[in-house]
Amino acid sequence: MTHWSEWSLIYESFHPEQEKLRESLCTLGNGYFATRGTGHEARVDNIHYPGTYLAGCYNRLRTEIAGRVVENEDFVNMPNWLPLNVRIDDGPWFSLHTADIVSYRQELDLKRGVLMRSVRFRDDQGRQTTLTSRRLVHRREPHVAALEMTLIAENWSGCVTIHSALDGRVTNAGVERYRNLNNQHLECLEAEVLDQKSLFLKVQTTQSKISVAEAATTRLFQMGQPLKVDWRTIQETGYVALEGAVDLKKGESISIEKVLALYSSRDHAISECGLEAQTAISRAARFSALLRSHSEAWNQLWQRFDMDFEEEPHKGNRKASLVLRLHIFHLLQVCSPHTMDLDVGAPARGLHGEAYRGHIFWDEIFIFPFLNFRMPEITRSLLMYRFRRLPEAQRAAQEAGYQGAMYPWQSGSTGREESQTLHLNPQSGRWIPDNSHWQRHVNAAIAYDIWQYYQVTGDMEFLCFYGAEMFLNIAHFLASIATFNSDLNRYEILGVMGPDEYHDAYPDNLGSACSHPAINNNAYTNLMAVWVLWRALEILELLPDDWRQHLCDKLDLRQEEIDVWEKISRNMRIVFHDDGIISQFEDYNRLQEFQWETYRERYGDIQRLDRILEAEGDSPNRYKVSKQADVLMLFYLFSSEELSALFKRLGYVFDDNMIPRNIDYYMKRTSHGSTLSRVVQSWVLARANRQGAWKLFAEALESDISDIQGGTTGEGIHLGAMAGTVDLIQRCFTGIEMRDDVLCVNPLLPEGLRRLQLRLHYRGHSLDLEITCRAVIVRALPCGAKPIKIGFKGHVHELAACETKEFNL
Amino acid sequence: MTHWSEWSLIYESFHPEQEKLRESLCTLGNGYFATRGTGHEARVDNIHYPGTYLAGCYNRLRTEIAGRVVENEDFVNMPNWLPLNVRIDDGPWFSLHTADIVSYRQELDLKRGVLMRSVRFRDDQGRQTTLTSRRLVHRREPHVAALEMTLIAENWSGCVTIHSALDGRVTNAGVERYRNLNNQHLECLEAEVLDQKSLFLKVQTTQSKISVAEAATTRLFQMGQPLKVDWRTIQETGYVALEGAVDLKKGESISIEKVLALYSSRDHAISECGLEAQTAISRAARFSALLRSHSEAWNQLWQRFDMDFEEEPHKGNRKASLVLRLHIFHLLQVCSPHTMDLDVGAPARGLHGEAYRGHIFWDEIFIFPFLNFRMPEITRSLLMYRFRRLPEAQRAAQEAGYQGAMYPWQSGSTGREESQTLHLNPQSGRWIPDNSHWQRHVNAAIAYDIWQYYQVTGDMEFLCFYGAEMFLNIAHFLASIATFNSDLNRYEILGVMGPDEYHDAYPDNLGSACSHPAINNNAYTNLMAVWVLWRALEILELLPDDWRQHLCDKLDLRQEEIDVWEKISRNMRIVFHDDGIISQFEDYNRLQEFQWETYRERYGDIQRLDRILEAEGDSPNRYKVSKQADVLMLFYLFSSEELSALFKRLGYVFDDNMIPRNIDYYMKRTSHGSTLSRVVQSWVLARANRQGAWKLFAEALESDISDIQGGTTGEGIHLGAMAGTVDLIQRCFTGIEMRDDVLCVNPLLPEGLRRLQLRLHYRGHSLDLEITCRAVIVRALPCGAKPIKIGFKGHVHELAACETKEFNL
Repeated sequence: MTHWSEWSLIYESFHPEQEKLRESLCTLGNGYFATRGTGHEARVDNIHYPGTYLAGCYNRLRTEIAGRVVENEDFVNMPNWLPLNVRIDDGPWFSLHTADIVSYRQELDLKRGVLMRSVRFRDDQGRQTTLTSRRLVHRREPHVAALEMTLIAENWSGCVTIHSALDGRVTNAGVERYRNLNNQHLECLEAEVLDQKSLFLKVQTTQSKISVAEAATTRLFQMGQPLKVDWRTIQETGYVALEGAVDLKKGESISIEKVLALYSSRDHAISECGLEAQTAISRAARFSALLRSHSEAWNQLWQRFDMDFEEEPHKGNRKASLVLRLHIFHLLQVCSPHTMDLDVGAPARGLHGEAYRGHIFWDEIFIFPFLNFRMPEITRSLLMYRFRRLPEAQRAAQEAGYQGAMYPWQSGSTGREESQTLHLNPQSGRWIPDNSHWQRHVNAAIAYDIWQYYQVTGDMEFLCFYGAEMFLNIAHFLASIATFNSDLNRYEILGVMGPDEYHDAYPDNLGSACSHPAINNNAYTNLMAVWVLWRALEILELLPDDWRQHLCDKLDLRQEEIDVWEKISRNMRIVFHDDGIISQFEDYNRLQEFQWETYRERYGDIQRLDRILEAEGDSPNRYKVSKQADVLMLFYLFSSEELSALFKRLGYVFDDNMIPRNIDYYMKRTSHGSTLSRVVQSWVLARANRQGAWKLFAEALESDISDIQGGTTGEGIHLGAMAGTVDLIQRCFTGIEMRDDVLCVNPLLPEGLRRLQLRLHYRGHSLDLEITCRAVIVRALPCGAKPIKIGFKGHVHELAACETKEFNL
Repeated sequence: MTHWSEWSLIYESFHPEQEKLRESLCTLGNGYFATRGTGHEARVDNIHYPGTYLAGCYNRLRTEIAGRVVENEDFVNMPNWLPLNVRIDDGPWFSLHTADIVSYRQELDLKRGVLMRSVRFRDDQGRQTTLTSRRLVHRREPHVAALEMTLIAENWSGCVTIHSALDGRVTNAGVERYRNLNNQHLECLEAEVLDQKSLFLKVQTTQSKISVAEAATTRLFQMGQPLKVDWRTIQETGYVALEGAVDLKKGESISIEKVLALYSSRDHAISECGLEAQTAISRAARFSALLRSHSEAWNQLWQRFDMDFEEEPHKGNRKASLVLRLHIFHLLQVCSPHTMDLDVGAPARGLHGEAYRGHIFWDEIFIFPFLNFRMPEITRSLLMYRFRRLPEAQRAAQEAGYQGAMYPWQSGSTGREESQTLHLNPQSGRWIPDNSHWQRHVNAAIAYDIWQYYQVTGDMEFLCFYGAEMFLNIAHFLASIATFNSDLNRYEILGVMGPDEYHDAYPDNLGSACSHPAINNNAYTNLMAVWVLWRALEILELLPDDWRQHLCDKLDLRQEEIDVWEKISRNMRIVFHDDGIISQFEDYNRLQEFQWETYRERYGDIQRLDRILEAEGDSPNRYKVSKQADVLMLFYLFSSEELSALFKRLGYVFDDNMIPRNIDYYMKRTSHGSTLSRVVQSWVLARANRQGAWKLFAEALESDISDIQGGTTGEGIHLGAMAGTVDLIQRCFTGIEMRDDVLCVNPLLPEGLRRLQLRLHYRGHSLDLEITCRAVIVRALPCGAKPIKIGFKGHVHELAACETKEFNL
């Protein structure tokens, strides 16, 4: 980023080595398809940057590498619609990499969702040309995208040839270490030029047999008038293009408009995707009209999703507004009204790159809370993604000998476990067993999100039909992995992995009660299980009697089992050490302290300590180190009131001053190997250390925009961290919490903020929330919804539509 | 039907001429796919009865007949999985049509959703055999179906050859008059035997390119033990079968279990449909286990959907219980939890036959109210079917020069107008122009259903995200087709068709104010437009301020236009004649009276007067005749209180005693050419004429079970009429109405009923409603939902969970 404004990310020079990062940060899309790329529309050879990912569209592939079979489900790049290039007379096709660039400017306009670029270049004959382009993926019409390019012949006259193509020969080549894997995902069904003017390409995914059709028109205009061009057709396997030439005089300009319509066989309300794409392109408006309706739609979306704040002079982070908007913008590239009706989840790396192969992890626990308060229908549709995969999760539980439903750590098209069993350490070049699928806590994350959605909306229909069934299945599963330790008179969960992926086994010198190599009594997993079981009992009470009975019958859930849930939720084991430190897992205190300084000196960046240690023949399993401190997740998800209630239920002593001690303990032992780590830590510091919270928040903001993990942003943004930073503003600094049908506010602005303003959607109301250091003001906009309850400092106030409440801090 | 029990439809003889009717009435399915056919599993040559329709799966086809191009969208039969047949030694394959049938019994068990058949037959060598079969389409596992056949060698020993197939060579041949149309909808992609034991067939629809995969296992058992069979493979284009032989001794029996897994490329949470079908079949349980879980699922469903009543001795209709259950059963074949996640509507003729080619009409106005109070999530999903087709409806309005959204009269896969422009009168053999697409009232039906769904659930999320957008678009459209008549100072709607399809133009002797041949100021259309516009104003108030503003921006709806809605809703023209008779349309009173008796004598059944008159060179347009009296629809949809309010708003005199006069007037002028007609008339008589209401109700019950329209049931059941009869019990005889967040009850049992008991779902509650001639009792089951309001005789009572209210009548 060269510079920025409140709404724009601007690059004013072209560095080839920053290309991947810039592309990822400037991705345009609508959750339906993302369009990567910066200057690449002006290169014909941009096969390495195919640029478009079809949400929720995967191929399942087996590849053999060095005698090992790697089975992966890989999300699919779509045919590239961006190829649009020019050349002057017999000169070369324009390329950013070979042309003599006089000036370069690229701007991602977040407010209107437009990517603009302007390049002035000179060729070896001294001809100077300016190429500007504007690109959009339409925010109101989910199947339409458009690109406009303007060429100015500054000091020459000559013939300009235009090449416009649809390219289905794309592969997955965005992540270097995956390149040996099978990466050819498309086969071409049709590639042709229709009516001598429109490009048409229809491809099919090689294994999952999903069809994708693209139709595109390319039109030329001069001085606003259409320019007739004799197009020549170029056809190769999986590639179709038009080429035509026009004469230009010195100082003249032409503009080229390319409009795309895209449909897949997974779309609803269609007959055949090729036919739909052709119909849509025949109906599509011109670029300027598309830009207008697109900008209006973005404007509306920003009214729903923006947040406004005033920073303290001298203490603020001046670009915070921009980065938060960038984060919201990217969240909306992945999950938006356009994905509501698609069977898709929220991939950990967005639709921005191939890392993690598009899989769905637990990141929704960081993503959904923000969406819930803005457009809960998006969350509902993402929860439906989980509901559709409930039978597969039930089968997984059954096959593992458990009850209920065991959602997998990584999920793809069918909902089966997609975690790799091996992964490559680029540091050592070795393939390492990957045990990350022992992270059962993903189930608790789903349950947490169901509850949050229900709390925000009061959507009883969702709960009755879908939510409760998932929730109870998850509760059933968590109860079934708990075992009773009669010596301690406590329930335990043995043999799992917590969110901290540095610990997947006990070191040799520590005995383990469990037969399989994992850790026991992970505090996060255990306490989340307690929360889930307790809440499950509440959900059983919420459901109408007959619905409850039907669900229990369907789940084969007997009263004795529900009684056990009650018991487990009162007698789960949480291990402590050092007088009040919650042990990350049992025997954590017997691990060695890690020599942080030594390693920092030796390696500089030690965020990925796991790789460093493995390369040294050592393992993080031996040390008190965390990639992300999963004990701290508890303070992230629960207020101190809620945590106190949980520990009280379990009969453990818990007082408020244990929180700062635990935070301090684990902060010192964390490498921040996950982008989520800083979000969590900023959150947990918010109450105790306003200055520290703001500092960590500022660092978390840098995750992607500065690519602080050294190149991983180019492989896809970190969606959880992006959403998490936004949620820090929305829920943490405002202290918003939903308890017993009450929306509680308890704001504490961090040191850098002076005023904060948000609009939330809650139980049919639109609420304007304004927070300063002195007061919090809640205003309910006019509407017909029933009054709601607002909680402030232990008192509950009723708030009806059109009313305003002001509370002094 | 030979005889029946409360839960079973039983045929005890085999009449080839009743085959189509019996098939339609015994269809098994789950909304996902319906399985027609009775004895046809035991015929290899059953290509004419392919038996399965894939919900929402259409091909768009053009056919030329006698120089006319007929363009139609036709729903698609799926590959037939039923072929399972036997032969003894070198004898012929068993066929019901050629065998010497000793006894025959067929039973559709509604309670468990099982079709059972038992045939004893004798061959020309005197060998007597009993074949029994049980068949199900699984109610819990939407992709699984199963068939079990048992063969008993009563008086012979010999070799039995079993033939089991999947047949993709099916065509659409169920409606005779469509046979000249293109009816080949499938092309075969793969047909093979996997692992020498499982049949696998994958086909693709010819035009819409939807793939459907079926995998089936066939296993033999004797005395419960698996029997090894050497299967021989038979493969033809689009057909794959296994054949194997076993020796049987006299008196022995074998059972054959065929289990099917079916997936289509439109399914969610899948990779590739063929792979999913193969995985599912490898996981499928045996028939007995499938039957058990299937029956449990049906049992639960019945607890949600059943209704219980006690009839007056001597006055009741003894088989009413059975027929109502049959209706509910068939409704659940078409719309059920299994369709909730599919992009499908409720076809007018169910998934039971090819009439109307699977299209969606306005029948949902009869169907949704029943579903709303039982499982509103089904209604929600059916409304989403409409929401997905909103852009197409907007385009249709735009192209016709109107605003908002104009939903088509007939809808298929894309939501464009699918009404034929020509139809064949079988009576005259002539192709007649078909103007039925002028029925704009389908839009009001959708709006009505949105409002009803919202009233039942209070689902503000649905309203904000989808419902209001559809509703306001429809209001916008209806306002845009209204024109202002300055002479009368009233708004009018000119040039439409009402629900009564007998009138699509004015006869020559009557001038028309409108340029296009249709009728003006149809009372039903006009009053529904008033209702929609009035309610639209209410919805605008319900929405949070910012959401309202966004919707108005998106719809380009200005305050001036909303002000016009207000005006139209107060000044719409309704035409009256004969002092208080609502004219079906303007100038209705100038039409000739029809010679009912003459025609009844001449033709006997005159339900389809339109065909009779056209064949005579005449037209119903000349007469005061109705296929269904659409004025009466107003009394069906609205209580007298609501109607009074509507007329009062319009400044027309309306008093309660106008209702019986109008009913009487139109009852005399109706041919009941639509199955919906009797439902409506029974409903409107319920208050005024308890005896007449019961008689018409009893007649409406016969619509399908006795095929009173002479053969049309075999072409598909009449889903609207089926749902309507059920809703008569549920809403009409109970007097249930939702007004201003109050659930009003105002029961009046018809003469035949003594007691009525229902369980309703309303705003998160399960309510048990019991009605006798003396009292109505409402009991709210335990749950966590907020108290609701119950209205009775003008008083509003609060009802909380666990409470009971009793009102004396």
